Amino acid sequence: MNPESTEKHLRYLRIALALWVVMFPLTAGAAEGHGDPSASVLLGLAVILVAAKLGGSLFARFTLPPVLGELLFGVLLGNVGLLGLSLFEGLRADPSMDLMARIGVVILLFEVGLETDAEGMLAVGLPSLMVAVVGMVAPFLLGYGFGLYFLPEAPLSTHLFMGAALTATSVGITARVLKDLDKLSLPESRIILGAAVIDDVLGLVVLAVVSGIVTLGTVSLATAAVILLKAVGFLVLALLVGRTLAPYLGRAAMALGSGAKLAAALVFCFVLAYLADAIGLATIVGAFAAGLILEEAHFHPPLREGELDVEFGKNRLDVQSGVPSLQQLIHPLSSLLVPVFFVLIGMRVRLETFADPTVLGEAALLTLAAIAGKQVCGLVVRKGYNRLAIGLGMVPRGEVGLIFASIGKSLGAVDDALYSSIVIMVVATTVVTPPFLKWSLEREARQQAVGKRQ
Amino acid sequence: MNPESTEKHLRYLRIALALWVVMFPLTAGAAEGHGDPSASVLLGLAVILVAAKLGGSLFARFTLPPVLGELLFGVLLGNVGLLGLSLFEGLRADPSMDLMARIGVVILLFEVGLETDAEGMLAVGLPSLMVAVVGMVAPFLLGYGFGLYFLPEAPLSTHLFMGAALTATSVGITARVLKDLDKLSLPESRIILGAAVIDDVLGLVVLAVVSGIVTLGTVSLATAAVILLKAVGFLVLALLVGRTLAPYLGRAAMALGSGAKLAAALVFCFVLAYLADAIGLATIVGAFAAGLILEEAHFHPPLREGELDVEFGKNRLDVQSGVPSLQQLIHPLSSLLVPVFFVLIGMRVRLETFADPTVLGEAALLTLAAIAGKQVCGLVVRKGYNRLAIGLGMVPRGEVGLIFASIGKSLGAVDDALYSSIVIMVVATTVVTPPFLKWSLEREARQQAVGKRQ
Repeated sequence: MNPESTEKHLRYLRIALALWVVMFPLTAGAAEGHGDPSASVLLGLAVILVAAKLGGSLFARFTLPPVLGELLFGVLLGNVGLLGLSLFEGLRADPSMDLMARIGVVILLFEVGLETDAEGMLAVGLPSLMVAVVGMVAPFLLGYGFGLYFLPEAPLSTHLFMGAALTATSVGITARVLKDLDKLSLPESRIILGAAVIDDVLGLVVLAVVSGIVTLGTVSLATAAVILLKAVGFLVLALLVGRTLAPYLGRAAMALGSGAKLAAALVFCFVLAYLADAIGLATIVGAFAAGLILEEAHFHPPLREGELDVEFGKNRLDVQSGVPSLQQLIHPLSSLLVPVFFVLIGMRVRLETFADPTVLGEAALLTLAAIAGKQVCGLVVRKGYNRLAIGLGMVPRGEVGLIFASIGKSLGAVDDALYSSIVIMVVATTVVTPPFLKWSLEREARQQAVGKRQ
Repeated sequence: MNPESTEKHLRYLRIALALWVVMFPLTAGAAEGHGDPSASVLLGLAVILVAAKLGGSLFARFTLPPVLGELLFGVLLGNVGLLGLSLFEGLRADPSMDLMARIGVVILLFEVGLETDAEGMLAVGLPSLMVAVVGMVAPFLLGYGFGLYFLPEAPLSTHLFMGAALTATSVGITARVLKDLDKLSLPESRIILGAAVIDDVLGLVVLAVVSGIVTLGTVSLATAAVILLKAVGFLVLALLVGRTLAPYLGRAAMALGSGAKLAAALVFCFVLAYLADAIGLATIVGAFAAGLILEEAHFHPPLREGELDVEFGKNRLDVQSGVPSLQQLIHPLSSLLVPVFFVLIGMRVRLETFADPTVLGEAALLTLAAIAGKQVCGLVVRKGYNRLAIGLGMVPRGEVGLIFASIGKSLGAVDDALYSSIVIMVVATTVVTPPFLKWSLEREARQQAVGKRQ
């Protein structure tokens, strides 16, 4: 190496060092670096996590569902471009971030499935089923009809998604609201929760039917029947075969050591999600089925003879052994990946579309259809119940409604304007429910108190 | 719809149903389906998790490090193609799986950083530092020299990686071996562990220097100095600035609620990983620094006046509060993603290359250099210590050696043959250590017992 080049190198070195010390925080923004493709994904995850936790905690402080905060902060992140900052434009359509979001929603539905007791679902029985079915049919017809009347030039697929997005009650948000009001023990609450769970399953069937119809392009009854049969058949077969296999899976995981518990559960979930996709359903249907099938008890040694034979509640065995429960093990995963899904959904809302009065009109119509459609639910239960409370309890849409919107968007059936409208509808129904449900339940309690005194 | 088409549809329906019921497990293999890009990733994750847990548990049963089982089952998965099955060929080069592996190794180094006590590192002091430095320089020179002598036609970058891959001691494997032998309290053990930790950090610096040299193509001293300064500067700056900021991060996370603890820690880790990449280091350097900086205490309210002021060990506060510790929260994440890294490393070993006698020759040379190079370590401590045990304790390579191999491969400095040789060297040094170390420590104990009796 000649002295001139050394001199040059030293000069570069000094300049680089001086620059680095002064501009350290700025060099971070440069696209320089090792070229490790995971680096930008890690930064994206960091940005999304910050937005999700700030938004979620802020909303939780005002006793609003954290998921709304995640959505709203997603909307803010996705629209800072309007202020001339194009910092996060790349995240919105980044395929790696999209993959994280998809795995996130699979894990969310697996978690919801784990929290849902398959036997308990059957026990709440007939009133729940009726409330659920009526609560799906009425909003679907209202949404479909509104679409047909107000957007006559839109394709059939758009009308179908307008109806479908209104069907599913958010079991997560409903349960959370009832729990926060301390009304979980009311018979109305049990009916609402049972119906919301059935709605979640039926919603996935509706999603499969509607997106199948949209993908295939035709609407023959036979096609719809095939998809419905596939969906129901998959769930029934998965539940039957899965329930037989799950104890062996649990025993295999136990034999491999306690570290294999989470792995076994995830493998079960991922394989069922893949199978659901392979036969034409959404991955989340498989993940939900996996959650329904798996029980904490599968991962614990059976009681030996002579031991006290106590009836354990599902997923409660963790108190007895030192091994963390499945839900405890899955929670860190879901707390990393689930917010990615909701923040990304928020980011895909384009605030520009709100300048279009039709978006606000569509949003108002969808919200009206969503609330009115679920009020029919109260009418199918017998007279003694607080019918208004049941109708109001079924109002919040949420995760599943948003999943409909994003799948509809990826299939081309839901455009930017309708997507924004559906997100507004989900936010509106969720924000509106807590105060009205509280008012209705407390009015009932007051009337009963007055009745007793008279 | 005309009757003929309905008839046709019904026939298709019957055929489809019959096929589906009979061939259900086979339909899963078809590339049909919803076209959800996450479905194949989920199946890949499931396959890798099964391989990792089977391999890890099998090795653990024979008191071998689980990481070796993950590697070996990865090799098996990646080479079933030799039996004519091309089932998993796609996984080996799948960019999504590669992304998961990269995030996995970032989380692994974050975990290792969390388990490493920055103050404790300084306390073990001089002998550890001397053992560490000698234990890096000697194997590097041996590996570099062997490369120069036996592969004279290979480029400089290959020789550099041959030396670099031999430098870092695996703190994870060493600690595990000493713990399994119940010898953690010996002074030799403390020196070995201290040196292994310093080795891990120095190894990352060596990695940064070597890959920087390879990327830039030249080997001027100034370039090397810039990279070394960058690496040391980054670590020092990160530690100084990070230590100042971490308590605020912890307080912010506490203010947002207990759910924000994991998110805050991950955001800190991901941002430092991104910054490391942005200034030209590996993401894992940033992740390790993040782990070193963060402490459990940052996430707990400070003691109020009058409360008992107990000196808490790092990461031990979880016993006191109901909140899970950082390590408990991160474990589920790492147990999902870290095996992806090791299984994928195994899958990239091409067994075909073993037919080439030069691979076995290279592997033997590297293993010899790896073992011989670390024996010099014993000579730098004063005479009273069991020098042989210290030399043997430094032998296991592991995670960092494999990271060197895969980064070298992605930079083109390490070809398929050398990659396989490095993996064989890592496996050989790790398998060889436990029995020899046990023998050396027990011989010493016997001699002392004999000496006392005389």
